[in-house]
Amino acid sequence: MSKEITARSDDYSQWYNDLILKGGLADYSAVRGCMVIKPYGFALWEGMRDVLDRKFKDTGHQNAYFPLFIPKSFLSKEEDHVEGFAKECAVVTHHRLMKNPDGPGVVVDPAAKLEEELIVRPTSETIIWNTYKDWIKSYRDLPLLINQWANVVRWEMRTRLFLRTAEFLWQEGHTAHATAEEAIAETVQMLEVYADFAENYMALPVVRGVKSPAERFAGALDTYCIEALMQDGKALQAGTSHFLGQNFAKVFDVTFTNKENKLEHVWATSWGVSTRLIGALVMAHSDDDGLILPPRIAPLQVVIVPIYKGAEQKEKIDAKVNEIMNDLKAQGIRVKYDDADNNRPGWKFAEYEMKGVPVRIAIGARDLENNVAEVARRDSKEKSSQSLDGLGAYIGTLLEEIQTQMYNKAKAYRDEHITPANTMEEFEKLLDEKGGFISAHWDGTTETEEKIKERTKATIRCIPLNNPQEAGTCILTGKPSTQRVLFARAY
Amino acid sequence: MSKEITARSDDYSQWYNDLILKGGLADYSAVRGCMVIKPYGFALWEGMRDVLDRKFKDTGHQNAYFPLFIPKSFLSKEEDHVEGFAKECAVVTHHRLMKNPDGPGVVVDPAAKLEEELIVRPTSETIIWNTYKDWIKSYRDLPLLINQWANVVRWEMRTRLFLRTAEFLWQEGHTAHATAEEAIAETVQMLEVYADFAENYMALPVVRGVKSPAERFAGALDTYCIEALMQDGKALQAGTSHFLGQNFAKVFDVTFTNKENKLEHVWATSWGVSTRLIGALVMAHSDDDGLILPPRIAPLQVVIVPIYKGAEQKEKIDAKVNEIMNDLKAQGIRVKYDDADNNRPGWKFAEYEMKGVPVRIAIGARDLENNVAEVARRDSKEKSSQSLDGLGAYIGTLLEEIQTQMYNKAKAYRDEHITPANTMEEFEKLLDEKGGFISAHWDGTTETEEKIKERTKATIRCIPLNNPQEAGTCILTGKPSTQRVLFARAY
Repeated sequence: MSKEITARSDDYSQWYNDLILKGGLADYSAVRGCMVIKPYGFALWEGMRDVLDRKFKDTGHQNAYFPLFIPKSFLSKEEDHVEGFAKECAVVTHHRLMKNPDGPGVVVDPAAKLEEELIVRPTSETIIWNTYKDWIKSYRDLPLLINQWANVVRWEMRTRLFLRTAEFLWQEGHTAHATAEEAIAETVQMLEVYADFAENYMALPVVRGVKSPAERFAGALDTYCIEALMQDGKALQAGTSHFLGQNFAKVFDVTFTNKENKLEHVWATSWGVSTRLIGALVMAHSDDDGLILPPRIAPLQVVIVPIYKGAEQKEKIDAKVNEIMNDLKAQGIRVKYDDADNNRPGWKFAEYEMKGVPVRIAIGARDLENNVAEVARRDSKEKSSQSLDGLGAYIGTLLEEIQTQMYNKAKAYRDEHITPANTMEEFEKLLDEKGGFISAHWDGTTETEEKIKERTKATIRCIPLNNPQEAGTCILTGKPSTQRVLFARAY
Repeated sequence: MSKEITARSDDYSQWYNDLILKGGLADYSAVRGCMVIKPYGFALWEGMRDVLDRKFKDTGHQNAYFPLFIPKSFLSKEEDHVEGFAKECAVVTHHRLMKNPDGPGVVVDPAAKLEEELIVRPTSETIIWNTYKDWIKSYRDLPLLINQWANVVRWEMRTRLFLRTAEFLWQEGHTAHATAEEAIAETVQMLEVYADFAENYMALPVVRGVKSPAERFAGALDTYCIEALMQDGKALQAGTSHFLGQNFAKVFDVTFTNKENKLEHVWATSWGVSTRLIGALVMAHSDDDGLILPPRIAPLQVVIVPIYKGAEQKEKIDAKVNEIMNDLKAQGIRVKYDDADNNRPGWKFAEYEMKGVPVRIAIGARDLENNVAEVARRDSKEKSSQSLDGLGAYIGTLLEEIQTQMYNKAKAYRDEHITPANTMEEFEKLLDEKGGFISAHWDGTTETEEKIKERTKATIRCIPLNNPQEAGTCILTGKPSTQRVLFARAY
C-alpha cells in the first residue's frame, strides 16, 4: 500500500484523521481550528450540496445571501441565543492595520476601532430576522421560504477535521409563516428532506426525532434532528430543523397583517446541515484500507486502470476503454481512465481504494483477448471477471446495488445497536461494552439528563418521532415515565 | 407603473440604486457596507457562477476551500500586498463575549484576546500559498490549478450595492506552474475565459488589456483585465487575471524539484470576478423602466400572463399555456406562468418589465379564438402577434436574437465611445462632453498617470492586448510615446 492507515481497532480517532488527510479530503491550516477543504473533499461537498439544493428548490425555497457580520447588539436581543453563541465567537473590533511604529510588520490601528463590534456569524437568525422585518408586511408575503449556503464560525476549543471546526460550510434555511401549524409542518418537512438525503444518497440510516429541552437549539421551541450511528458505536447529529415559534419575530418586531386585517407576529423555522456530514459519511462506511463512498455522491464512481506492456498493447486497450467510457458517460456515470504511466497499476489500485471509488475496472492485454475485464467493488472487495459485452449496463446496475448494500449494511449495524436498558447498571454496561443507542426510560427533567450525562458521558440523542408510549420508570430516579428515549455517547 | 424609477437623465446613480432595490436584486443591511443579496439577485449570481464554474472545470481547474481568516503576519510577508490591503480590512481580535458587568447586553471578554490578530480575507494569496508549500514538492505536482468560490471583505469607506461593498462574493483562482511561460499562458487563458463569458453570456463587450504599473494588483508582476463601458460613459473593470511571478512562492518558500532534480521556486497566477459583475450587467443594458437581462443568464427567460374574465375563459387559456410551457421547458427555456389572481395583468406587465424578463407572452380569450398570442420583447419593447402554431420554436429563436442584439447594441455604443485625443484640451473636453474610453499617448510613467488622474479623474483603464504601435507624444508631458492607451473615468 502506498500510504499507511492506522487500524480502527488500534485507534479509531487516528484512523479517522488518517482517512481525511490521506484520502485527500481536507488538510490542517495555519489558522487554529480552521481546515482547508482539498479538491477531492470539496467535490464531495459540491455533489452533496447540489442534491440538497435541488430538494430545497423542489420544496419551494429560494437561495439568498445575508451579511457575514452580525452587530453585537443583535446577538444580545434573544436571551437564549446569546447564551448559546457568545462564548465562542470571532469578534471584529477594528477595520484597519498600520505600520508597526515600534518595529517590523503591521499592527492594529487603534484609531480604527469600530463603534460597535461585529461578530462573524455563528448562525444567521438575528441578521435575517432583522431583514425580514422590512420584507414582510402582509399575509400575502408569507410563507417566505429562503435558504443560504454560507460559511459560519464558532470558536470551538477542541476541533476535529469536518466534525468540529472553527469555520465550517453549511446551509441554513430561514422561513417565515402565518401560523404555528404551517411553521411546524415546514420544520417536519425539512427534517424529512434531510433524512431522505442521508438515507438515499449517503446510505446513512438515521433516527428521526426531537431533542430534549437541554439539547435544543438556542432560541428554539423545538429542535427536530436526525441521528446517525458511527462504527465505533458513537452517535452523530447529522442535521437539525428548528421550530422557533415567534421568538425571533417578537425580538425583531416582525409582524404581518392577517386576512382579518389584524397585526400578528410571524412564525419561524430554521434548519441546517453542514460539512460535518462528510465526517459522518467517512466514519459510517470506511474501512482500514481507506474511504468507502456511496456511489450516488462519490465524486468519481468508476476508475479504469489499464495493465499493459508497450505501446501496442496500450493502444488496443485505449480503444476499448474509449468505448466503455462513452457507454458509462452516456448513463451519466462519473468515470476516469487513469492511464498515467508514472505510477504502476498496484499503486493506482491502492490509491483509488484509499479514495473510496466504488468500482474499479482493470483491463489487461489478455483480458482483451478474452473479451473480459476485472471489476472490483470497493465496499465488499469482491472481484469478478465480466464480459466486455454489456459491461456498461452491468456497471450501472452494480452501482445501484452497491448503494443499496451499503445502506443495508449500515442499517443492520445501527439496528443491532439500539438496545433497551432498564437499570443504570445495564445502561452503563451497555455503553462501555457495546455502545450504540440505548433505549431507556427517563423522567423528563433536565436535571436527571444532566446527572446521567455527568456520570456516563451519554446524552439524550432524541425522542424518536412516533415513539411508542410505554409505562416505565426512569433508570436514574425511578420516577414514572411514559416513553423510552435514545441515549448515546456522541460526536 | 407599479414602482417609480428615477430616469437616467435625471440622476444616473439614483436610477441604478432604484433598479437594484426595486428590481429585487439586493437590499441594504444593518451592517455598514454589507448588502443582502435577495433571491432574484442570487438566482442571477447562481446562473453566472454555474457558467463560469463549468468553464473553469473545462480548463482543468478544481474547486477547493481555504480559511476565511488570514493571520496578520501572513499579510505582512509580501510588501506590496500588505500595502494594498491593510488599510481597509476587518480585524478579529477576540474570540468571546461576556455579560456586561456594568449594565445590560454583552461586551468583549478582555481575557479572550487572540495571540495574533486574524484578518477576514480580502483575497487569499497568502493563506493559499502558505498551504501550497506542503502540497508542492516535485514538477509532478504541477501545474496545480485551483479555484475557490468565497466571500471576501474589504473595508471600503464609500460603498454602492454590488459595485463596491465591504463584503462581496467572488471566485479566486490560484494556480502554480513550473515555468513563467506556463503561468503567463494560464493568466491569458483565464482572461479569455472571462472575456468570453462577458461577451457571450452577459452581452457585454469588453476590451482585453493589461494594467499600467500603478493599477496593478498588489503583489503582481502583470495584471490583465477586461474593461467594459457603462451607459453613462464610465468604465468598469469586470475581471482581472494576475501573473504573480515568483513573489508569493519566494515569500512562502514554495519550491519544487524540476526534471533536472534542481530546486526552483514555483510561478503563480491568480484571477477573479465578483458580484460586481451584476452591477456591470445592470448598468450596461437597463433602461428607465427597469432591468433588461440578457436571455442566457436571465433567471427567468419567459413569463406568460393570462388575460381572462371568469373561470371558463381561464380554463381554456390554462390548457393552451400548459402545452406552450411543456414545449418551452423541453427546449430548456426557463419559463413561468403567472396566473395569480390577486394582481391585474397591467401590474404584472410592469413587474416583469422591472425585473428584466426578456420575453413576455400574453394570452387572452380572443387571442385563443384567433390562435395567436402577444409576444413582447423587453429589450426593444417590440410587440407582435404570433401564431400559436410553432410558438415554442419562435420563442427559442427570439431569445437568441435578443441575446445577439443586446450585445450588438452595447458594442455599437462602446465602439462609438472609444475616441482618440491628441492634446490635454481635447482629452478634457471629451471626458466632460462625451465620456467613454479616450485613446491617448502617454509617456509610460506613473508620475504622469497620477497627474492626469488628479487633473481629470480619469485613469488608464488598460493597454489593449495586441495594441497597434504608433509613434506619438504624451498628451501631458509631450515626451515620446510608442502607443496609445485607454483612459476613462471609472467605477
